[in-house]
Amino acid sequence: VFDSVKRVVTPLRWDGRELWILDQRKLPGRIVWIRARTAEQTARAIESLAVRGAPVIGIAAAYGVALAALRSGATAQSITHAIERLARTRPTGYNLFHALNGLRLLAARSRGNITAAIVRRAVKIHRDDARSCLQMAKAGAALMRKGERILTYCNTGALATGGIGTALGVIHFGYQTGKVAEVFACETRPVGQGARLTVWECAQAGIPCTLLCDNMVASLLSTKKISRVIVGADRIARNGDTSNKIGTLQLALLARAYRIPFHIAAPFSTFDGSLRSGKAMPIEQRPPAEITGWYDGLSAGKNFEVWNPAFDVTPAKLITSYITDRGILHPPFDRAD
Amino acid sequence: VFDSVKRVVTPLRWDGRELWILDQRKLPGRIVWIRARTAEQTARAIESLAVRGAPVIGIAAAYGVALAALRSGATAQSITHAIERLARTRPTGYNLFHALNGLRLLAARSRGNITAAIVRRAVKIHRDDARSCLQMAKAGAALMRKGERILTYCNTGALATGGIGTALGVIHFGYQTGKVAEVFACETRPVGQGARLTVWECAQAGIPCTLLCDNMVASLLSTKKISRVIVGADRIARNGDTSNKIGTLQLALLARAYRIPFHIAAPFSTFDGSLRSGKAMPIEQRPPAEITGWYDGLSAGKNFEVWNPAFDVTPAKLITSYITDRGILHPPFDRAD
Repeated sequence: VFDSVKRVVTPLRWDGRELWILDQRKLPGRIVWIRARTAEQTARAIESLAVRGAPVIGIAAAYGVALAALRSGATAQSITHAIERLARTRPTGYNLFHALNGLRLLAARSRGNITAAIVRRAVKIHRDDARSCLQMAKAGAALMRKGERILTYCNTGALATGGIGTALGVIHFGYQTGKVAEVFACETRPVGQGARLTVWECAQAGIPCTLLCDNMVASLLSTKKISRVIVGADRIARNGDTSNKIGTLQLALLARAYRIPFHIAAPFSTFDGSLRSGKAMPIEQRPPAEITGWYDGLSAGKNFEVWNPAFDVTPAKLITSYITDRGILHPPFDRAD
Repeated sequence: VFDSVKRVVTPLRWDGRELWILDQRKLPGRIVWIRARTAEQTARAIESLAVRGAPVIGIAAAYGVALAALRSGATAQSITHAIERLARTRPTGYNLFHALNGLRLLAARSRGNITAAIVRRAVKIHRDDARSCLQMAKAGAALMRKGERILTYCNTGALATGGIGTALGVIHFGYQTGKVAEVFACETRPVGQGARLTVWECAQAGIPCTLLCDNMVASLLSTKKISRVIVGADRIARNGDTSNKIGTLQLALLARAYRIPFHIAAPFSTFDGSLRSGKAMPIEQRPPAEITGWYDGLSAGKNFEVWNPAFDVTPAKLITSYITDRGILHPPFDRAD
């Protein structure tokens, strides 16, 4: 059955010397590939949201370090510099730091051909993430009954990962195996990852999908018999508190108000064992123009302010369960079923 | 003190023969006035959202009937036709039907110069709404303490009414009288009335205003010490159930989750005495392109659906109180204080 879940799109292509990045800012209108030959170019693609989604950011960053090693002959300085540069791109998603920390250790310990070791590791991170997606999909399918009507958020599909996706991968596999009847996708302001990417992925996969704005969620949950909310994660603390795309917190609160199960789907590379809870999670603030740029004549300045946090933190108590590559977990993560 | 609350903008100008409508779709980028010489032109301005906001829709429709009377010499047929045409523009806001029902009765009972009577009534509806705004402002100010940090939604200011506004009028007056410290305005998708209109009105009035997206509300309420949520209404049933701009229901649920007072500000012309509860409230569905049009390459069709309700219904139990032109009301509206 796994083989029937086709990859509808790939956000990264590694050809052994260069990294090709599908520019997600241009979707669904245009297919544009960015060629990254350096860690700096990779870092800029991450910062500008050309590539986004916590798992694939980790993968892209690993290839960025591989590019630095290839270009420099793997000097310690160039690798350290690349890791530090890539670590400054986006603060919230943990998969980035998980990947970079692993590469830092690898580079420090490697004997012999360090470049080859780093490239192999980047490719392995990519492949491992694809396998994690399938493991999440299998775990998630076991939760579902026939006829599921699922609300999802942001984009957590093939575009956000090395495989079929986290939350959207679970949904995609659930659709292929006859359990998911229908998907509802929130627009996800201000960048519109739901409207531009999730709708596009669902359409390509033939999954019946309905787009709604982020302010229509309570109305949807109160009238449309939604069976489950499944979203991804950018960082998960030891107690289960989860940072994810801004708006996730209110989805979780609204799901609770209407007694609808609310699930996080994420690979283990999203879990930050150094954080006891969500209190200290770094929340990226994005530029005002990301919001004001949508409106003719609107520009933030002396007359008004713009608040544009890219993430929020959902407390573990609002989360029904975590669909992971090691099975379904319930906080405080001391049992799996 | 009332005199110090200046009208920052006017959405309609009546010159005795023609109705000039400020095209709110073009704001804040451009100031464009539409000249309406017929009921049909007025109806199209309402349907297209050139003029929007429940109270001012009622006023515009009254002027639309006046235009029909002026053009036709007030034949019964032309007036009936104009009333029926205007009643088909937008189904949810009740002020429209309140105004048209009054005009229908007036036309049926009038002796003598029916045209003059209709024009006088339209001007009176306009002036009465301006006075209602000031009465709401005074009632709302009595609720407030110094230093209020208020979240509002959609646009409920001068652009939406014949006066200083409903919810935003209360906030404006609260700011002028030293009680409101700061306003937070939701973008209000998909048309962006908050981003385009409320931010613009606040900036013109010098009220400190911060714009956020609709998916940032829970994050705002959980971190920014918001003292109160105040929004407008399109129709209020006898039991207090309130239809208002889509997204109001989830604002009310989130305010409840964070124990923040949630108020509706509306004139009595918004109350529909024929409705026992919100169950039978008509909810306008708007075209998919209103959402998909924001994204290059996204168009609803065979591949995906779009759900675009313009309103939702907030149950009375989630509403702390109603700020009206007859004082503060608590459901079931049998006492005022």
